[in-house]
Amino acid sequence: MSDTDFTQAVSWNSDGLVPAIAQDFKTGRVLMMAWMSRESLRLTEKEGRAVYWSRSRDKLWRKGESSGHVQQVREIRLDCDGDTLVLVVEQLGGIACHTGRTSCFYQVLENGQWQIRQPVITDPKDIYAKADGAETKKNAEK
Amino acid sequence: MSDTDFTQAVSWNSDGLVPAIAQDFKTGRVLMMAWMSRESLRLTEKEGRAVYWSRSRDKLWRKGESSGHVQQVREIRLDCDGDTLVLVVEQLGGIACHTGRTSCFYQVLENGQWQIRQPVITDPKDIYAKADGAETKKNAEK
Repeated sequence: MSDTDFTQAVSWNSDGLVPAIAQDFKTGRVLMMAWMSRESLRLTEKEGRAVYWSRSRDKLWRKGESSGHVQQVREIRLDCDGDTLVLVVEQLGGIACHTGRTSCFYQVLENGQWQIRQPVITDPKDIYAKADGAETKKNAEK
Repeated sequence: MSDTDFTQAVSWNSDGLVPAIAQDFKTGRVLMMAWMSRESLRLTEKEGRAVYWSRSRDKLWRKGESSGHVQQVREIRLDCDGDTLVLVVEQLGGIACHTGRTSCFYQVLENGQWQIRQPVITDPKDIYAKADGAETKKNAEK
């Protein structure tokens, strides 16, 4: 950490959060979008891994804490008006989504219908078999 | 449009909006994040160009309406829990940001400081010289 607090440049919303977009450092694929609090952003910078704020569980969420699918952070970017972050990450296990897919954005609009356009890499049952309940199958982390 | 309304699969927030992440179809670069209403999503699908909902102006915002920096939509993706969109776009003019840069995410965290890591391609004064006021220099569209 430097002398000045870099989190002051962030325009936190009325809940004290901002959206954080995780992008794969190698493929450029957008993996997921989650929320960050000031504390989770500080921890992300300090620990070098993505730490989000779970709105449903109302607590810090170290991505991969039960799945093992940790996001190692290569770069943190802030947008022009300071209210959205991009995390450029290395996605351990190659799976960001609780459905066992690489990316959460697996539904593509085609002729007015959402089509699933990404395979399941690992069955969620196997991902969360040893889960301690901290990260549930349902994408409740958001 | 098909018989079923594809916007029903979207989990709109309490303001009737969802975040929409625009990504360049060629480079994979994340260009910006803005918000969409049900109507703006329908129009985006119908017109093939990004139509957002401006929270500050409380109205539809056809990206590029004054700057000319229209986003032609190649693909619309929805995430696992239906509350975030990705638009894969061709960014006309190569500039998504009101500051005249390719992407809004031009600030990179380095040693606890935000550093500007993208050049200005066109001076905003020139971009908005002929603006009709519908899209202002300040990124008020969000």
